[in-house]
Amino acid sequence: MRPLVEGVLPKVRFRDPQIEMAHGAGGKASRRLIEGLIVPLLSEHPSEPLADAAVLDIEGRRLAITTDSFVVKPLSFPGGSIGDLAVNGTVNDLAVSGAIPRAMVVTLILEAGLPTEVLEIELRAMAKAARQAGVSIVGGDTKVVEHGMADRMYITTTGIGELMPGVSLSPKTVRPGDQILLSGPIGDHGITILLARGDLELDADLRSDTRPVTAMVQALVEATAPGLRWMRDPTRGGVASSLNELARDSGAGLVLSEGRIPMRDTVRGACELLGLDPLHIANEGQFLAVMAPEFAELALRAMQQVPGGEEAVIIGEVKEGPIRTVLCETPYGGSRVVDMLVGDPLPRIC
Amino acid sequence: MRPLVEGVLPKVRFRDPQIEMAHGAGGKASRRLIEGLIVPLLSEHPSEPLADAAVLDIEGRRLAITTDSFVVKPLSFPGGSIGDLAVNGTVNDLAVSGAIPRAMVVTLILEAGLPTEVLEIELRAMAKAARQAGVSIVGGDTKVVEHGMADRMYITTTGIGELMPGVSLSPKTVRPGDQILLSGPIGDHGITILLARGDLELDADLRSDTRPVTAMVQALVEATAPGLRWMRDPTRGGVASSLNELARDSGAGLVLSEGRIPMRDTVRGACELLGLDPLHIANEGQFLAVMAPEFAELALRAMQQVPGGEEAVIIGEVKEGPIRTVLCETPYGGSRVVDMLVGDPLPRIC
Repeated sequence: MRPLVEGVLPKVRFRDPQIEMAHGAGGKASRRLIEGLIVPLLSEHPSEPLADAAVLDIEGRRLAITTDSFVVKPLSFPGGSIGDLAVNGTVNDLAVSGAIPRAMVVTLILEAGLPTEVLEIELRAMAKAARQAGVSIVGGDTKVVEHGMADRMYITTTGIGELMPGVSLSPKTVRPGDQILLSGPIGDHGITILLARGDLELDADLRSDTRPVTAMVQALVEATAPGLRWMRDPTRGGVASSLNELARDSGAGLVLSEGRIPMRDTVRGACELLGLDPLHIANEGQFLAVMAPEFAELALRAMQQVPGGEEAVIIGEVKEGPIRTVLCETPYGGSRVVDMLVGDPLPRIC
Repeated sequence: MRPLVEGVLPKVRFRDPQIEMAHGAGGKASRRLIEGLIVPLLSEHPSEPLADAAVLDIEGRRLAITTDSFVVKPLSFPGGSIGDLAVNGTVNDLAVSGAIPRAMVVTLILEAGLPTEVLEIELRAMAKAARQAGVSIVGGDTKVVEHGMADRMYITTTGIGELMPGVSLSPKTVRPGDQILLSGPIGDHGITILLARGDLELDADLRSDTRPVTAMVQALVEATAPGLRWMRDPTRGGVASSLNELARDSGAGLVLSEGRIPMRDTVRGACELLGLDPLHIANEGQFLAVMAPEFAELALRAMQQVPGGEEAVIIGEVKEGPIRTVLCETPYGGSRVVDMLVGDPLPRIC
C-alpha cells in the first residue's frame, strides 16, 4: 500500500486523459494519479499524510491495516514468485509501519485456462511465506475471468497488525542530524524481474530479495524505539522514490553517500547497461529507517545481528536543506539531485 | 468473501486440470476449488467452518474482516456499477457476520488505456456508497497492467468491522422449527447484469438491488439478537447456494415455500425464458436470516420498518430432515430438491 499523502505541497491535479503503464510504476505519474484523483475522491481526510499502512483506533487498540494487489510478470523468477511477494509485500508494509502482522486475507483473480498446477504452486508459496512471517491467512475470495482478461493470476493481500508499543513513526518527527539506515543491497528484485523477462541477453546469478523484514524491524524497535522516526520499504520506485516522499513530507533535505549504498555488481552492471539509476529499482526485502543520531550505531548493530541483516548500513543523513530534496554525494566529491522515478522502466514489478 | 467451510462432510478433492469460468461462479465448482485446493493449502485450520467474514480476537476485541475482488461485466448497469458493488459487497459481508463496518481498504487493477473518466465515475461511486454505508476508506493500492491484460478495471475491497454485542451466529445453532427470513425480492442483480450484456433481446425495467443491508441487520439485531442464528447475503450462486451451505453445515433440512419467495415478474420471465432457477440468480442487496420461531414475527416487523425492508418475508422453515437438503414446496402441493448452482449460467456477476 503506497502512502496516500497530500503533505505540505499544493494540490496536484490529474489531467491525463487515460491510464498508462507509468501510472502504476510507483514514481511521479503514480503520485499524480493517487494524489490528484484517487485520494481526493475516496478519502475523507485527503490532506492527512498516511503511511504504508493506515492506523485504526478501535476502542483503544491501535491496529494497522494495509492492502496491495500483485500483478508481477513473470509469475515466478529466481528467488521467488507472485505468491511470496503477495505475502511478504503486505507483511513488510505492516512491519515498516511498526506493526506485528496478525492476520491476512487474500483474493485471487484467475484467468480461465490457468493450469491448476500453477495455482497450486502459488498457493504453496503463499502458505510457506505466511508461515515464515508468522501470519495466519484467515479468509479470502476467488474470481475467474475469461481467457485473455487477466495475465494468468493476480493476487490481492490485506494484512492487519498490532502496533508495537513505544513506536511513533512520522515524517514530521525527522530532524537534521538523523541518520538514514538501509537494511541491505538494493535493486536485486527489480533487476531479477528484468532478467527473468528475457528482454536482456544477460545470464546473471541474481535472485529477488523477497523476504519478510519483520524480525529486523522488531530487533530495531526493541533496541531503539525512542530514536526511531520513520521506516519504509522501498519497493516500486526504489529508494529514490521512498526518500523523495520523506523529503517532501518532512520538509528536510536528505543527503546520501553514494559510495555507502550496497549493491551487487550484477545490479550495477545491468543499470549501467540500461541507463537506469539503481536508486529507482524496486526492492522487496529491504527497508529504510531514519534514526536519531544517538541511536544510529545501536540500531545498526541490532539489525546486523538478525540473520539477513548483516549488510545493514548507514547510507546518509538528514540535513537542514536543500529542503524537500534528496542529494547523492558521489565518491569523487560531487553531488547530484536524486529525483523520483519518472516514466516506467520496469512495469509490473510487483 | 465466501465461506471456507470444510464442515461435516468428507474432504472434496480438486482434480480439474485447469481453471474454468464455473470455478468462479459460486456454485459446486467454486466449492470444489475452494475446499479441495485453496483452503487446505492456505488455512491453518482447514476443518473449521468460517463465515462470510473471519473473526479476529485482538486483545479482547472481536473484529470481523472480509475481502472480495470484483470483476463484474459490464462495469456499469442499471442501478449500479462495479464501484457500488465493491463497497456494498464487503459492507454486506460484514453485516451478515453481525459486524458494523468500521474501515475499508481498496485496491485497483487498471488496464492501460482505461479512460480517466471511467475511473473517476467508479471512484465517485465508491465514495458515495461508502458514505451511505457509513464506512471510511482509509487506504489503498493501484496497479496498472498492459492493454489486454485486464478488462478495464478490477476492484478489491477489504472491510473491518466490530461485532455487535449479543450476536452469536453459527450454522451449528440452527434448530428444527427455526424460521427462514429473506429481506426482499430475489434475482434483480443477476438478471439486470444479464440484460445489460445485451445477450438477450429483452428490454425490461429492472435495476440491480446493490445496496448496504447494514441498517436492516442492525434493526434485526436490536430487536431479536438472542433469537438470531445465522445470516448470509445470497450473492453468487443465489439463495439456493447459500441455503445449501447452511443445510450442509447445520446438518438440518430446509424447506422453502415457493409461493412465498418474492420475485419481480421480469426476473421470473427471464428465468423461464432461459431455463434458469431464480434461486440460483445472484443478489447484491438482500440477505437471509434464520430465527428462533418465537422471534420470527418480531424480526419480520423490525426488518419491514427499515426503509427498503418493506418486502421482507418468511420463506421457509428448518426441519429435522431430509438432512443436509434444501426442499422447495410448490404451490400445487409438490416439492423439489433445490441444489447448489452447477455450471456457470452468469459469469462475472460481481
